[in-house]
Order: sequence, then structure tokens, then C-alpha cells
Amino acid sequence: MKPPIRFYFDFASPYAYFASMRIEDLAREYDRPVEWCPVLVWAILKAHGIAPPMDAPVKRDYFLRDMERSARFLDVEYREPVRMPLSSHLAARLFHVLSRDHPALAIPFARSVFRAFFVEKHDIATDDVVASVAVETGIPRDVAIEGMKGQAGRDLLENAVTEAVSAGVVGSPFFVADGEGFFGADRLPQLRWHLEGKS
Amino acid sequence: MKPPIRFYFDFASPYAYFASMRIEDLAREYDRPVEWCPVLVWAILKAHGIAPPMDAPVKRDYFLRDMERSARFLDVEYREPVRMPLSSHLAARLFHVLSRDHPALAIPFARSVFRAFFVEKHDIATDDVVASVAVETGIPRDVAIEGMKGQAGRDLLENAVTEAVSAGVVGSPFFVADGEGFFGADRLPQLRWHLEGKS
Repeated sequence: MKPPIRFYFDFASPYAYFASMRIEDLAREYDRPVEWCPVLVWAILKAHGIAPPMDAPVKRDYFLRDMERSARFLDVEYREPVRMPLSSHLAARLFHVLSRDHPALAIPFARSVFRAFFVEKHDIATDDVVASVAVETGIPRDVAIEGMKGQAGRDLLENAVTEAVSAGVVGSPFFVADGEGFFGADRLPQLRWHLEGKS
Repeated sequence: MKPPIRFYFDFASPYAYFASMRIEDLAREYDRPVEWCPVLVWAILKAHGIAPPMDAPVKRDYFLRDMERSARFLDVEYREPVRMPLSSHLAARLFHVLSRDHPALAIPFARSVFRAFFVEKHDIATDDVVASVAVETGIPRDVAIEGMKGQAGRDLLENAVTEAVSAGVVGSPFFVADGEGFFGADRLPQLRWHLEGKS
């Protein structure tokens, strides 16, 4: 296989959810593995001194409308989440622990988290919801709780955020292929063009 | 003709320049007129309490790279401008005066301003540059100077900014069709989909 595509995302980002429905198929076409790397956008923006994108009411209104419309445009199932923004640290910590200890479960877990938040309207900032999603994905409950609450998950997520900050990640989703960064689900066509060797 | 597409843009926005190369062809396909409305993004963001997009060095670096790459992706001629951000009030004022008094000259003038800034690396924040662009587009020099400096241009631009703020414009380019807003050159595919009646 050729060099990987690194996929930085926040579990609470609708555009990351949309991109997650496309990136594996796209990467497979060009024989690239995908490295899923959940991060916390709020922490990355804070490190860069950037205000969160939905702070201003006019941007919040626009993006809520754009999210719903983009889902229809991309033909992705979507219902407006129970609240946004929201800190997705529990799911992100558990993902990183799974990725290290039970790698085959990590991406199925990630897809279930996205579905829980963006289709089933569950609050993924709560332990119970994330634990239930994990159990349904075949992860023992004690492994899930330890992943969300233990030191390993905290450290792995902190490292991921630090690495993303130094990689120049400016939001979610953010893809890096061959040193080239692509920000936003709407940059997938440019990522494809890059993978075709035309950039 | 069917209802218009309103095209809000800042002359200093590369993504507006890219969109300006596509919007007329797209609108013509669906029998829609385009209303070009230059505004000042810095003034709109200030009214909404939003920080300029290129304030943070990491976003500046990303966007400079993305602008150059997007131009190649879209096959649009582009050279990095002499400086960004920059206030495009002179060209915007003159555009609004032309639009009122010499409407046939307004869009050709706008295209020449974009070209002067994004291809020829001229500083469109200076009187001389904008006056020269105007003269080359067939506008008498005294009309150009009066448009840039007179009260009419100031008032027309101020009204346009106020109107854009209340229309929910959050950046450049921003399109409104049938009450639906589309932000960014990368939303042109969604605008097309809307014009097809599928949204």
C-alpha cells in the first residue's frame, strides 16, 4: 500500500461525519490506508488562539442550515444533534485506547458514535451513551469505562491533540496526504485530484 | 427570467474571484440573472463580532496554500496577491456607482479588478491602480475618481454592507437564491443542485 491518508476529526463535527462516510471508499480506490485520528477541535482552536466557528449567532444559523442541507446533498442520513457544540472527549479517548489495544474495533466504534450523535440524537458527552454504543459494537463495558476514564485514554488523546496542532490542523475534518493538508468535507474532490497525481 | 441569484463578494477574496469565473455560466443554465454586490468582509465580520479568517498564523498558512491549490484545481489563473488582507473599498464604491449610472460597465470593471489583484499582482487598495483598471475598461478617469472618492460611492457601499449584514452574509463569496444562502466557492455544486430544484 501507498502512504496513508491521516484523517483528523472531532466526533461532534457534522462535516467530519459526512466525510467519514466517503473517505474509506475514496482511499481504497487509490490504494491508501486511512489513519483515523479523533481530536478535540475546541482544544486545537484554543491552542491556535482561534474562536470556535459557531460562537457568532449568524454563523451558527448559517451552519445549522448548511449541515442539514449538506446531508441531503451528500445523501447521508442526518438529524440535528441534541446540542452543539459539545465536547467529544469520552468517545475520542476510548477510540485511541481501542486503536492501540483492539484495532479491529476502533473504526466500527467510531461509526457507531457518529450514528448515535447525528442520527439517533443521543448525547455523546455522557458516559452512559458512549458505554452503550461501545457495548453494542462488541466492546466489554469495563474496557469502555476504563478507556473513557483511565489515564491511558487521557494521555493518548492529549498526544493526538498536540500532534494535530503541530501538523497545522485548523478544523474538522482535516486530511493530510503526502504532507498536503485538506480542510473540510468539501475538499474531498481536491483530495481525490491529489491522489490522482494531478495536484 | 426567474428570480435572481444575489452574489455578495469582496474584491480582495480569492474564493470570490474563483466563483466569479463560474457564476454567470451556472446562472445562465437555469435562466437566472446574477446581482453582483461587492461588500467589505472585514466590515461585515466586525458587525457580527467575528474575527477575520486569516488572523491566526496557522489559518493564514493553510488558506494561502489552499488558495493556490484551489486555483489549479479549478483551472483559474492565479498568482498570490501583493498583500492580504486588504481593504477593497475603492473598487467596491466605484462598482456600486457604475452599477447605478453605467450598468453595462460594472461587471467588466469587476472582472478587471479581480484580474489586476489576483493575476497581475497590483495593489487594488491604491487610487492609481483602480483608476487605471477603470480607464482600461472604458470608464472616464474623472468618473472613476468621483466613484472612489465621492459621497455617492461611500453611501452605496455602506448600504450594501448593511444589507449584507441583515441578509446573514458570513463571508465571501456568499450567494442567496430563493432565500437560501450558500457560503463559499465550494458551495457552487450545492447552488447548482438547488437551481435544479432538488434541494
